[in-house]
Amino acid sequence: MQGDRSKILIESIKRLLRRGAVAKLLKIVNKAHASDLSMVFHSLSRSNQRKLFGFIKDIEKKGELFSELDEDIFLNLIEGIDLNQVVEILDNMPTDDVADLIGRLPEEKSDTILEKMKKEGSKEVEGLLSYDDDTAGGIMVPDFIALREDVPAGNAIMSLQKEHMDVEMPFYLYVVDEYGKLTGVCSLRQLVVVKPDTPLKDFMTTDVFAVKTNMDQEEVAKIVAHYDILAVPVVDETNKLVGIVTVDDVIDIIREEATEDILKMAGAGEEFVETKSVLKSIRIRLPWLFACCIGGIIASFIISHFQESLSKVAYIAAFIPVIMGMSGNIGIQSSTIVVRGLATGRLNVKDLWAVVFKELTIGLILGMVYGLFIGLVAQVQYSREALAISVALAVICSMSLAALSGSLAPMLFARLNMDPAVATGPFVTTAIDIISVFLYFNIAVTLLGI
Amino acid sequence: MQGDRSKILIESIKRLLRRGAVAKLLKIVNKAHASDLSMVFHSLSRSNQRKLFGFIKDIEKKGELFSELDEDIFLNLIEGIDLNQVVEILDNMPTDDVADLIGRLPEEKSDTILEKMKKEGSKEVEGLLSYDDDTAGGIMVPDFIALREDVPAGNAIMSLQKEHMDVEMPFYLYVVDEYGKLTGVCSLRQLVVVKPDTPLKDFMTTDVFAVKTNMDQEEVAKIVAHYDILAVPVVDETNKLVGIVTVDDVIDIIREEATEDILKMAGAGEEFVETKSVLKSIRIRLPWLFACCIGGIIASFIISHFQESLSKVAYIAAFIPVIMGMSGNIGIQSSTIVVRGLATGRLNVKDLWAVVFKELTIGLILGMVYGLFIGLVAQVQYSREALAISVALAVICSMSLAALSGSLAPMLFARLNMDPAVATGPFVTTAIDIISVFLYFNIAVTLLGI
Repeated sequence: MQGDRSKILIESIKRLLRRGAVAKLLKIVNKAHASDLSMVFHSLSRSNQRKLFGFIKDIEKKGELFSELDEDIFLNLIEGIDLNQVVEILDNMPTDDVADLIGRLPEEKSDTILEKMKKEGSKEVEGLLSYDDDTAGGIMVPDFIALREDVPAGNAIMSLQKEHMDVEMPFYLYVVDEYGKLTGVCSLRQLVVVKPDTPLKDFMTTDVFAVKTNMDQEEVAKIVAHYDILAVPVVDETNKLVGIVTVDDVIDIIREEATEDILKMAGAGEEFVETKSVLKSIRIRLPWLFACCIGGIIASFIISHFQESLSKVAYIAAFIPVIMGMSGNIGIQSSTIVVRGLATGRLNVKDLWAVVFKELTIGLILGMVYGLFIGLVAQVQYSREALAISVALAVICSMSLAALSGSLAPMLFARLNMDPAVATGPFVTTAIDIISVFLYFNIAVTLLGI
Repeated sequence: MQGDRSKILIESIKRLLRRGAVAKLLKIVNKAHASDLSMVFHSLSRSNQRKLFGFIKDIEKKGELFSELDEDIFLNLIEGIDLNQVVEILDNMPTDDVADLIGRLPEEKSDTILEKMKKEGSKEVEGLLSYDDDTAGGIMVPDFIALREDVPAGNAIMSLQKEHMDVEMPFYLYVVDEYGKLTGVCSLRQLVVVKPDTPLKDFMTTDVFAVKTNMDQEEVAKIVAHYDILAVPVVDETNKLVGIVTVDDVIDIIREEATEDILKMAGAGEEFVETKSVLKSIRIRLPWLFACCIGGIIASFIISHFQESLSKVAYIAAFIPVIMGMSGNIGIQSSTIVVRGLATGRLNVKDLWAVVFKELTIGLILGMVYGLFIGLVAQVQYSREALAISVALAVICSMSLAALSGSLAPMLFARLNMDPAVATGPFVTTAIDIISVFLYFNIAVTLLGI
């Protein structure tokens, strides 16, 4: 349904642009939501992107659009408009989004813009730029409500109504001591149920989940999701409250990280390649396939080593695909379960041996089930016991080893604080290919006595 | 960090349970957050789960814990405690969570509980139970704030403070007409900036994103994420407001759906098998491997058909792994990009041919690059042009076909309103295995003249 609506909007705007129907364009563009417009920009030519942007009147909508657009479209728009207008748009945007955008610009341009921006805003942006993109500091907003412990509830409500109208999402009221250090939190609901003269410290919750500025954004997202909270406060090394991370940013992080993991595991790079050009896609996917290619060539050397046996008993080649396929598939199962388990916090790196042992057991049992079955098929087909036993043994060994390496590799990577998703995909499957071919031929040659 | 904290909590509680240190257990259990406690329950024996649950004093914490626990642990706890206590706990929980839990119980038990629950609450729960679990109706909460269009802002604020204290997350004030039909929305912030005597309809936003009760939960999550909103109103067929879906539930949906997609694509079932027993894991993974097994056996029949040629020119077997591996990998890349693109809304089902054509082009180009490379390796190794050309051609054809089928299958599934993730994984890879073996042997036998 949502896809349909975007589609209709895209087609209407394209048609109106072709016709040059300015009045209708103005109406449709200024009525549409920024998130929907961003979809439209994706499918326009560079010149039409600039043209359409010119039709937007509301300065806040221009800002929202800036934060929704892909980097290349944003840069194209920036080049097409006057710097003063860019500054005006940025001045009307939430600080965290501005920092994000400024970080994408060439340094020269970003310096000019920061100079031109309103003093207060540009200072906040510079503050945010000093944190790593992927940390709590990089994704937090510096707009939060913090009051002292002895402020009465009634005054807190008044100050909410008067002073804090610029706060993006006012869910919680944070309580700080005289040094700005976080001591507690109140919900807006608590504020209205107590008597107006009760000081905050009498009813605030002191058990606040706060994160440090350098915490990885994935960790922050886990905490917000785990505790079902709408915002988490961010503190510096001295426990001073410096910002909050809100739930809408957390949703984006969770989706991005899941997508990244999936694409990395499939060896398709970290990026959403489907919106990029064919050439860009090829550049991203080529190197991942190289691992697989080298693995296949190694396997071909292994097999060519057994060339003489093969010409005597050609049919042993017939079972190469099924042995490779079975071990490859169980390896992907194991590594996927481990990678996703680590990502969602269901698996702990400390349980390395328990997890790997469990996967090995599963690999062994499934290997025996399918080893017997495929061995039986081999026996029926060729009536040669030694071949049937070789095939069965090769399936059992390679499936067990595949489950073992498929779980061990991502667990070890995670323990070394490296991304477990990278260990999966092409590397593990390639290793499994080589191992299974090697095992099969050695077992078959030994048992068949060739 | 979060993992570490859970780990410490689990170990401490286990130690205290062994020692029977009741006083310490009481203290630690009642201080811990329900989300953290749920992690502890996962790693306890059934009898210890019941024992630990007995230590929890706060009835609301018991309810929170109920909604966090896995089904089997929840059922174990329910059996161990008095039905009246269960009813008391449920009466203090948000309605959507109660409906979730009741849906898991055997019918007999759930009927008894619904009868015993406070009348109002049980009616709401029964209302929710009538919707499908995976739809907007199934995940919404019936607690929202709805006022009539002509209510002045000042009265709205007063009614918020007095009457709507039970609303789970009061972000938005919905405006309805005399028939309860949704006509607009105000944010709490808007309420306090206007003059107290302004009626809601004068400043409300009439452009409300509402979803129907039967909309798939994944679609609902997409809308909330797309528009960065904290809650989306749910309406019935007559546009009457019946509930809201809040952002915390959306986060859970996004994570679950991503996990489901990843596991399905890897052929590891839809469930989080790593917390389950070895036997359960095997039961889930066995059937997925069967597709691969049958594919492998078919491939073995194909190869056995060429047995005679193989015994003459045994080394053609050496390139089976590299051809299968390369086509399998590019097939996974294509299908992963398509499945994830569809899930995140970056790809549209209507673009079927554009997407498939792009993947085919990529497959063809990458196939030519690696076909030439692997052909060259074959030439150097065996100095036989016909073999080198066969290998090169087989790589090009099977990689192109793999990219084609890897993208076509999920796109077609999506178009038929079936889950595209299922089409990927074992089925596509198995089909690719068969195709590539078939192509390779036919090309090789023709060109080598054997």
